Amino acid sequence: MHLNRTWSKKVLPLTLASALTVGSLTWSASESASARGKSNEDPEIRNVIFMIGDGMGVSYTSAYRYLKNNPNTMVAERTEFDKYLVGQQMTYPEDAAQNITDSASAATAMSSGVKTYNAAIAVDNDKSEVKTVLEAAKQKGKATGLVATSEITHATPASFGAHDENRKNMNSIADDYYKELIKGKHKIDVLLGGGKSNFVRPDINLAKAFKKDGYSYVTDKKQMLKDKNEQVLGLFASEGLPKMIDRPSETPSLKDMTNSAIKRLDKNKKGFFLMVEGSQVDWAGHDNDIVGAMSEMEDFEKAYKVAIEFAKKDKHTLVVATADHSTGGFSIGAKGIYNWYGEPIKAAKRTPDFMADAIVKGADAEKTLKQFINQKKLKLTSEEIKSVTDAAETKNVTNIDNAIEAIFDNRTNTAWTTGGHTGEDVPVYAYGPYKERFAGQVDNTDHAKIIFELLKKQK
Amino acid sequence: MHLNRTWSKKVLPLTLASALTVGSLTWSASESASARGKSNEDPEIRNVIFMIGDGMGVSYTSAYRYLKNNPNTMVAERTEFDKYLVGQQMTYPEDAAQNITDSASAATAMSSGVKTYNAAIAVDNDKSEVKTVLEAAKQKGKATGLVATSEITHATPASFGAHDENRKNMNSIADDYYKELIKGKHKIDVLLGGGKSNFVRPDINLAKAFKKDGYSYVTDKKQMLKDKNEQVLGLFASEGLPKMIDRPSETPSLKDMTNSAIKRLDKNKKGFFLMVEGSQVDWAGHDNDIVGAMSEMEDFEKAYKVAIEFAKKDKHTLVVATADHSTGGFSIGAKGIYNWYGEPIKAAKRTPDFMADAIVKGADAEKTLKQFINQKKLKLTSEEIKSVTDAAETKNVTNIDNAIEAIFDNRTNTAWTTGGHTGEDVPVYAYGPYKERFAGQVDNTDHAKIIFELLKKQK
Repeated sequence: MHLNRTWSKKVLPLTLASALTVGSLTWSASESASARGKSNEDPEIRNVIFMIGDGMGVSYTSAYRYLKNNPNTMVAERTEFDKYLVGQQMTYPEDAAQNITDSASAATAMSSGVKTYNAAIAVDNDKSEVKTVLEAAKQKGKATGLVATSEITHATPASFGAHDENRKNMNSIADDYYKELIKGKHKIDVLLGGGKSNFVRPDINLAKAFKKDGYSYVTDKKQMLKDKNEQVLGLFASEGLPKMIDRPSETPSLKDMTNSAIKRLDKNKKGFFLMVEGSQVDWAGHDNDIVGAMSEMEDFEKAYKVAIEFAKKDKHTLVVATADHSTGGFSIGAKGIYNWYGEPIKAAKRTPDFMADAIVKGADAEKTLKQFINQKKLKLTSEEIKSVTDAAETKNVTNIDNAIEAIFDNRTNTAWTTGGHTGEDVPVYAYGPYKERFAGQVDNTDHAKIIFELLKKQK
Repeated sequence: MHLNRTWSKKVLPLTLASALTVGSLTWSASESASARGKSNEDPEIRNVIFMIGDGMGVSYTSAYRYLKNNPNTMVAERTEFDKYLVGQQMTYPEDAAQNITDSASAATAMSSGVKTYNAAIAVDNDKSEVKTVLEAAKQKGKATGLVATSEITHATPASFGAHDENRKNMNSIADDYYKELIKGKHKIDVLLGGGKSNFVRPDINLAKAFKKDGYSYVTDKKQMLKDKNEQVLGLFASEGLPKMIDRPSETPSLKDMTNSAIKRLDKNKKGFFLMVEGSQVDWAGHDNDIVGAMSEMEDFEKAYKVAIEFAKKDKHTLVVATADHSTGGFSIGAKGIYNWYGEPIKAAKRTPDFMADAIVKGADAEKTLKQFINQKKLKLTSEEIKSVTDAAETKNVTNIDNAIEAIFDNRTNTAWTTGGHTGEDVPVYAYGPYKERFAGQVDNTDHAKIIFELLKKQK
């Protein structure tokens, strides 16, 4: 049964379906009474930052290490993630007989502990709503936040903060963010990402509604940095944000948004739950775009570093990072060649998408390529340029994009098998109190189960 | 400088190059004096079983789980490996600027702690020999063994028990097994695998030479099981063993060989070092053969279970299992379809290689397919049969093999990107004392470094 989508504000039903026993889900009202100050002696967990590199399978995390490799040393310098690897997780959705997940089902597993069908947003196989760890944190009086480079209503963040039988209903998901209340209050304090078009619509202006309820509403980096409100709706693009290397200076990075979210949420003495998604590793993977994928890996790594640095100082913050699945069948190496080259990727100042878009809009193909690909680092051959000018003649943006991507695939020795997802296990990283609970071979549902349990420990 | 290949038996030089400091490598003569009995109270490590699934990247370990999935349950049943996952390892060879390893370089890293060039067998970049953990164990008076389904002189086992500037020199590697002595004695007590042609040669009969020195020489499963000698050379095929599902009853499985090796080695009161390789996951990966890959995963899992069961009883045995790299760019899923199907693989009674071989030798293509593919589990279409009968007309075994493999790729939704290796991190599994030392993000050289250190602890 689906939530009634009327505009009356309503309290989130306490009878939400859940994989956990009733006992372990019940928060008694008295439990949320005692706020406590920061103390280095207190071993207790106060904050949880859950980070999802969408599509960030082991080929992506490994390739990114080789991309960052310092050629002046013999060793591969470790990434920020590498330092905190604790294991791997299984990603299959509702039934192991269907073993490749989408982002909605995977995020629902991680947010609620419930395996469900692909496309489900925090609803189970019967389309009953399931409680999420964000909701449980809010019930405990904690501050809560969602940060993403996709629409903030996209499958992954939505599965932590909304309930819908289909991920496609992004307007309804924005509605949920506004109208699903816990203890009479909005359940998500910080919303930062893209997707303005899902909030500011002909039928309703949710940005205005949030503002009326005390939220700040910001739409560029400067506004976001200046504003100090504990509750904020930040929408920095009509749909998804531009990828890191394509981003104009007024658009915040994932690091900027993560930092801003933590500063606001940390004002709550009862602590916070924050979900941060590097959304577009996956989008680049679907596009089989190695340049875009590595751009988004870097964007996500920088945000991860901010979270880790906060946790190191705070000492009561658990940071878990993982992927929901891998994408594209990306392989490090192809055609029997025993090397993968990161250098050509560093020559790209913009993604193939960005260049293709400029070319299809009338820019000269060769000039565009030479403008956005550093010719000292990657000297384009006449054949490579011709492949793109030929594609430009079709006036089809996909053809042009594919032609540019093919140059990078060939130069880096990258290959792909699909425009969809793949089913291999993905890495799990954990830092902070109780990190050992996430170690070894875990299931995507284990994240929620452990976080529910940790929340339950809290007074 | 390469070892002088004369036939005088000689003591292994003590000046072998190593990544470790001299101090940590020196075994004083007095240290090897005290043998100790089994005691459940003794926390000390006595035996190390190091297992390598050649080419067994995360797509293989994940796919194998889905293959084994019980369709009557919703969850994916865990494999034997899953229970002991502790992290992942980096696989790059000599320099991170070349980041895809071969099996020789990877095995040298794991056996000696030294990164080297592809093709190197326990020699460093300057072709100086490096000490291996097997050699260090023998210097401590332990029993030692190598078990593989490839030639026992193939890259992986060779890198633990021989030294050569090129893996191709399998005869010289067999020579090393015989003539490189430690304290005047043969350094490898148990050698079980394929590669008879590298031992019994026109120029020399090493099997005879080993027998003269007190080894048993066995060539089939029955002989192996009957023989109880602590020292044995078992060669069960001229080159590599047939894959598990193609194996005749007289050929031992990897489990049979592992079991036989452990029983012999465990007679040494000072303990043992055993390396076991599931060699042909990789060979199937190179061939882009999903049926063969899963056959060899099962063979390796069964051997792993034997090692774990021994370690559980023994309580002083560390079992580490990992891969050297992944192979083939194998992806679970392809063409945008969100499922991978294990059932068609279970229909195969033989590998595509086996069937193609029969067909090229004159067997009827359709009859052969129907003989070796269970038609109740995988009902072949007329198009599928035609694709193989067409290939059969070329009388080219590769064409026939590829046609059969294509049926399984299509039915399972499997894809590949290369006939070579790929560079992503691979899983690490550990059980027993000091297993935590292998946890997290490790490097392939860490295995040897840790095992050297553990050996050094021993009196």
